[in-house]
Amino acid sequence: MNVIVISIGDELLIGQTINTNASWLGQEISKIGGNIIEGLTISDKKDQIIQSVDYAINKADVVVITGGLGPTKDDITKHTLTEYFETELEIHQPTLEKITTYFSMRKRPMLESNIQQAALPKDCTILTNNYGTASGMWFEKTGKVVISLPGVPYEMKGIMTEEVFPRFKEKFQLQSMYHKTILTQGIGESFLAEQLADWENRIRQEGLGLAYLPSPGIVKLRVSSTQGEKDKEKIEEYLKEIQVLLPQAVFGYENETLPEIIGKQLLEKGLKIGTVESCTSGLLANQIVSISGASDYFEGSLLTYSYKLKEEILGISKTTLLENGAVSEIVALQMAEKGLEKLDVDICLSTTGIAGPLGGTEDKPVGLVWIGLATKNGVKAMKFQFGDNRERNLQMTVLSALNWLRYELLK
Amino acid sequence: MNVIVISIGDELLIGQTINTNASWLGQEISKIGGNIIEGLTISDKKDQIIQSVDYAINKADVVVITGGLGPTKDDITKHTLTEYFETELEIHQPTLEKITTYFSMRKRPMLESNIQQAALPKDCTILTNNYGTASGMWFEKTGKVVISLPGVPYEMKGIMTEEVFPRFKEKFQLQSMYHKTILTQGIGESFLAEQLADWENRIRQEGLGLAYLPSPGIVKLRVSSTQGEKDKEKIEEYLKEIQVLLPQAVFGYENETLPEIIGKQLLEKGLKIGTVESCTSGLLANQIVSISGASDYFEGSLLTYSYKLKEEILGISKTTLLENGAVSEIVALQMAEKGLEKLDVDICLSTTGIAGPLGGTEDKPVGLVWIGLATKNGVKAMKFQFGDNRERNLQMTVLSALNWLRYELLK
Repeated sequence: MNVIVISIGDELLIGQTINTNASWLGQEISKIGGNIIEGLTISDKKDQIIQSVDYAINKADVVVITGGLGPTKDDITKHTLTEYFETELEIHQPTLEKITTYFSMRKRPMLESNIQQAALPKDCTILTNNYGTASGMWFEKTGKVVISLPGVPYEMKGIMTEEVFPRFKEKFQLQSMYHKTILTQGIGESFLAEQLADWENRIRQEGLGLAYLPSPGIVKLRVSSTQGEKDKEKIEEYLKEIQVLLPQAVFGYENETLPEIIGKQLLEKGLKIGTVESCTSGLLANQIVSISGASDYFEGSLLTYSYKLKEEILGISKTTLLENGAVSEIVALQMAEKGLEKLDVDICLSTTGIAGPLGGTEDKPVGLVWIGLATKNGVKAMKFQFGDNRERNLQMTVLSALNWLRYELLK
Repeated sequence: MNVIVISIGDELLIGQTINTNASWLGQEISKIGGNIIEGLTISDKKDQIIQSVDYAINKADVVVITGGLGPTKDDITKHTLTEYFETELEIHQPTLEKITTYFSMRKRPMLESNIQQAALPKDCTILTNNYGTASGMWFEKTGKVVISLPGVPYEMKGIMTEEVFPRFKEKFQLQSMYHKTILTQGIGESFLAEQLADWENRIRQEGLGLAYLPSPGIVKLRVSSTQGEKDKEKIEEYLKEIQVLLPQAVFGYENETLPEIIGKQLLEKGLKIGTVESCTSGLLANQIVSISGASDYFEGSLLTYSYKLKEEILGISKTTLLENGAVSEIVALQMAEKGLEKLDVDICLSTTGIAGPLGGTEDKPVGLVWIGLATKNGVKAMKFQFGDNRERNLQMTVLSALNWLRYELLK
């Protein structure tokens, strides 16, 4: 199944909107075994739409078009496709009912332009949109498929998931792909590849696919099979090997996140957490509370950014600060320890570091970070040396702190 | 100047990387008066590259190609273009010297594949890359221009800015565009448009262009002229009108940000700031310290997320909390007031609200936020009602707090 994606919209061409729809379609269509061969971004013009659809339909099996289905005048995709496929518009009752309900529930008046959204081409399959007023359309011509979807990301994704993917599976002989992704933190991509060289050879010999998906601080490994669920157990066995080999690095599977995972751990154990932050200045606390229900285990934080507050709020002595500097093992330890007491929690994480771009010295270069972890059983600190990008250093600090906590909570 | 952008790379097609290069090119080329007529995303294959360049060169005046210039084997853009323009590769001495210096400075060995990056087509203008090892190329054929650039965003942007835009201005009769953008916070796009209807009519009658660029909490208004600098003063006069009309909403111009602006104000006045946060849990502090040098005015924060810490750390009485709830005017006032004292600062901002998705009641729906502002002269609180999206509510809270502070500091 070769696919061309056509994205319609001047806002994409002039860069006012980033084309995240095309990326999502690329990811999801690849996952089910489809092959994206080209992407076109074009303007809301009739000639341009006809020319591009004509080009794409000759080259690919499936053309997915997004954008240009709103109620405003410049959204002309529907009219153009109706003409291209030599059919005509007629009111589609189920869509009209959906639109009417949509407006009455929101107590907003329905305009003529909204009613016109229910006028849809006769000779096509209407794809239900459960998230908005513009229905999708599925045209077929000489065995080729042309799909037209609204450009609003959650509407497009909803229709693809609920209406399009099941039809793809019926119509095309897709390889039945099976994927499983394992998530690692704290080991760079090339170092990870080196450590897993033997493992990688073995899984490739079995005919399984492997993709490294790196992002700052996290590398995801996706193993895939073209044999579908049949290889599920085999893949899970292989992934378990990595988990056993690298228990500190492997933190989860699929779409799990570290705040989610430590949230579950803390809830299960009935532990309360707080943070004392210097360089990250709230970023760590913010990640922890990004999970719904975090108030069940997160109490709060002290952001002691200045020397003064490290003294006044935490009670770290001036001598300790001046002799060791704020970015030091002893200060990280004391921040966590004092935080445990002041915040009256079971666990306290602390961060102190030189995020950059300024503030580095020969002894303490930009990217140096100390993380502290205090519990009722004692306090420890760990040293990290990240790079020279401020934002990335802060991100890595937060991920490292959360992953360290996860590992400690396993014990 | 009609432009087609070709983005090369399988990582773009399968959605592993989002195509931010195309958006940036769209924005910048539009700004100088160019017209992006189409975008193509294609794979690293010779036939595909030739076919797309051929298509684009027939349709546009300029073709900008990004990607496929790295030292690895699958990066074949250079070889393909060399063949397409019927020329041959030869070592380009300045590029070779640049690459040699690049590796010796980083004390990394230079591989044969790195040397080969200096082999460049004879019949083209070499575009210096000051940020990496892959030079850009500028080909001309029957009056059309084809430009090939690396896909790494900061390298591509550097070459465009330093080498390509100046050449565009020489070669093409571009309308000399002049733009100025004014930044507003706290007024929605449609409400703003209503308030500015008369103003908008007047500037359109003058032949000036106007674009509303909305993002959560902020609406930017860009006024543009095709007459270039000639209209600079006129545009500035018009924008000053908005500033006088909406002094609470207008916070700056061009690329300024609220943390930057309040940072300058605090530095000038020699004031120290801190925050006491509940719902935003560090997001506000984090925005304030996102500016280099923020340690000169930011002391720190108390993130009193739980009722317990509001009592224990701030000393807000249990009765006050139970009678009014944590999301109330009195608690916002006390959070700011107590923070001023505990953090020993000149200004303290506080936030308490129901970010959602859960926790709303009939009296206090999701999106209700109280912001407090304490100074040595007293304390005030302001009520906001945002929407039902958690992330957006938190973003709006931070922007509203910073913009309120900006306005107070003007007095």
